[in-house]
Amino acid sequence: MGLIVQKYGGTSVGNTERIENVANKVIDWRGRGHQVVVVVSAMSGETDRLIGLAKNITSRPSPRELDVLLATGEQVTIALLCIALEKRGCPARSYTGGQARILTDNAHNKARIQDIKADSIRADLDAGRVVVVAGFQGVDEDGNITTLGRGGSDTTGVALAAALKADECQIYTDVDGVYTTDPRVVPEARRLDRITFEEMLEMASLGSKVLQIRSVEFAGKHNVPLRVLSSFQEGPGTLITFEEANEAKQMENVLISGIAFNRDEAKLTVQGVPDRPGIAFSILGSVSAANIEVDMIIQNIGRDGTTDFTFTVHRNDYERTLEILNEQATRLGAREVSGDGKIAKLSLVGIGMRSHAGVASKMFEALAREGINIRMISTSEIKISVVIDEKYLELGVRALHEAFGLEKAA
Amino acid sequence: MGLIVQKYGGTSVGNTERIENVANKVIDWRGRGHQVVVVVSAMSGETDRLIGLAKNITSRPSPRELDVLLATGEQVTIALLCIALEKRGCPARSYTGGQARILTDNAHNKARIQDIKADSIRADLDAGRVVVVAGFQGVDEDGNITTLGRGGSDTTGVALAAALKADECQIYTDVDGVYTTDPRVVPEARRLDRITFEEMLEMASLGSKVLQIRSVEFAGKHNVPLRVLSSFQEGPGTLITFEEANEAKQMENVLISGIAFNRDEAKLTVQGVPDRPGIAFSILGSVSAANIEVDMIIQNIGRDGTTDFTFTVHRNDYERTLEILNEQATRLGAREVSGDGKIAKLSLVGIGMRSHAGVASKMFEALAREGINIRMISTSEIKISVVIDEKYLELGVRALHEAFGLEKAA
Repeated sequence: MGLIVQKYGGTSVGNTERIENVANKVIDWRGRGHQVVVVVSAMSGETDRLIGLAKNITSRPSPRELDVLLATGEQVTIALLCIALEKRGCPARSYTGGQARILTDNAHNKARIQDIKADSIRADLDAGRVVVVAGFQGVDEDGNITTLGRGGSDTTGVALAAALKADECQIYTDVDGVYTTDPRVVPEARRLDRITFEEMLEMASLGSKVLQIRSVEFAGKHNVPLRVLSSFQEGPGTLITFEEANEAKQMENVLISGIAFNRDEAKLTVQGVPDRPGIAFSILGSVSAANIEVDMIIQNIGRDGTTDFTFTVHRNDYERTLEILNEQATRLGAREVSGDGKIAKLSLVGIGMRSHAGVASKMFEALAREGINIRMISTSEIKISVVIDEKYLELGVRALHEAFGLEKAA
Repeated sequence: MGLIVQKYGGTSVGNTERIENVANKVIDWRGRGHQVVVVVSAMSGETDRLIGLAKNITSRPSPRELDVLLATGEQVTIALLCIALEKRGCPARSYTGGQARILTDNAHNKARIQDIKADSIRADLDAGRVVVVAGFQGVDEDGNITTLGRGGSDTTGVALAAALKADECQIYTDVDGVYTTDPRVVPEARRLDRITFEEMLEMASLGSKVLQIRSVEFAGKHNVPLRVLSSFQEGPGTLITFEEANEAKQMENVLISGIAFNRDEAKLTVQGVPDRPGIAFSILGSVSAANIEVDMIIQNIGRDGTTDFTFTVHRNDYERTLEILNEQATRLGAREVSGDGKIAKLSLVGIGMRSHAGVASKMFEALAREGINIRMISTSEIKISVVIDEKYLELGVRALHEAFGLEKAA
């Protein structure tokens, strides 16, 4: 008997039939003696439909009014879910972001939650009601409607779980948990029963988009146990933990939790720049001034007083970045500017590798065996990322999955 | 230079192109030096779409949650209109019913406005902004979202005009004013420049649905000058006045303002009931106990100790009412119960007839000349209604329109 916050995404509430299915799930959990708070997204397609209406008028709608518009998406879902719950005799009450007193700053379209005054929700729970809250939205201190940006419903769920000191925050999605890698690439990919918060952060930031990064960070900060489950099939899902589980894991000799990958990046190299202090800033300053985000950065030791500088950006920014670098080449004294838009990033993630040598060499060996050339390498305490030619991505993922025996439970 | 409240209905904001057209109109009025508050309905079709979603789940959705659902319709429109206004460089701010502090009772789906705290709206107007308010909705004292029932956007407009002491409340619709009768029946029907509040009430309640009755009543109670205009064509529309304009009108010998009609009713007769006190209650008590609303009621003087009792109900209630009466016939001692579902009601409306004899006889003569038999007659100070066979409706309306010379301006 505990307090559970459940979050259902757009696909899980994509039509009224699915909303009724969610109602059944909620009533099932309530029947086991739990108090349940449900956070829902807009029905899939609805947010895009609303944005489409605004874009019919202008490509740059006022941020405040865009939030007023988009907030209706989740409001429709909370009403429909409550209607489905009450039809089944389950007392329920819907809350918009404002009614739930989810207070945010006033950064429209990307607001951050500052506080939740959950007294009213708690009173409803104590009165035996299921509480249904609109995700993705809040109000600022003047009562203006704000939204948290795309995917913000996860954050709403975690923030409510933190405010209510819930026993668990369950994120229902269309996959039944976090996998060792994408099962569409490696059919043998295995669902993880648990993964540490830090590993999850790396997996999420590397393109295995099961959860929004911000919600995982928020959960970590407030120590909210987070579970990823499927809304379409039964199963325990994957629990994201914050204990020092890595100790236990090392005992079991689990080095690697999973393999993340990402095709969204492009790589640029400035060759033969003078190897002197400030050169990195000279190159990246003009790029970041154009609001282009840089991911991996590599600079090798110089030779003959010059060095090569390589970094990756989102593929959408590739052309513009190349332009900027070419404009700057003379000023920088660079010999050449080159780039590649057809790359992929591939990362091994695992808390176990912190204290285990040999993971990197085993990784490079597995790739070499398949004839895959490594273009860039970057490491952190719990991951090793390599950049390879895009065409080798699937082959590389399968090779690593097998080399580290990820298909077998530890 | 004044303060104007404008209300645009669902057809006027039916798509983003029309919303941009409304933005142009609003900016035009503002350019003439007026402060403008705009009240909007949901885009046409949207409310039905939302109700359809709820009905997918259950035919009897919870009233509170239905309001949460339906309120999103107008919220979409306020955002889109503000986006269109700001695109044109016109500062604007949207208000949901709750943000506008439109406080209602808690009768979900048919709430009544109790108070409007318009300080914030006034501050926005003084700061030079156009204020756009969601019609049809409010909040109760606990912050629950309520709706005023279908057509409630008119009421929102009038209530805001009263709270802000506006100089005029303009109701934009798809007709360009109030006509002497429906132009689809009488092509010569003429737009009235002005009509008194009482005449408008009779016209509205008799089926000439230009405005919601409740909003006209509200306007009368608070002395809000109301104007009906078209959002699709230019023109002065029809002003609904509260002065004792009838004095002036009588001088001009204007007897009749218009002809209203209604095909929604059915008539029932209980014949040969004992002519004794309490008989009317005996008959109607069981009908109203079944929540059936009764419109016209006629009881003629008795003969041989019995009398005939006739009344009309909405056509949808006809079968059920007939059933009830047949069940009660024996108890009532009635000789016979009969009814007719194919009737029409036709009414002359005019403040001028108050002090003018001969209107009724002129009306009956005009109908007789066309061979139209009158089944029921009922009169009030400013109207005469007759029930005739449905098939004669158009003929009757045209005959009266001509007999009273309504095609000519007074």
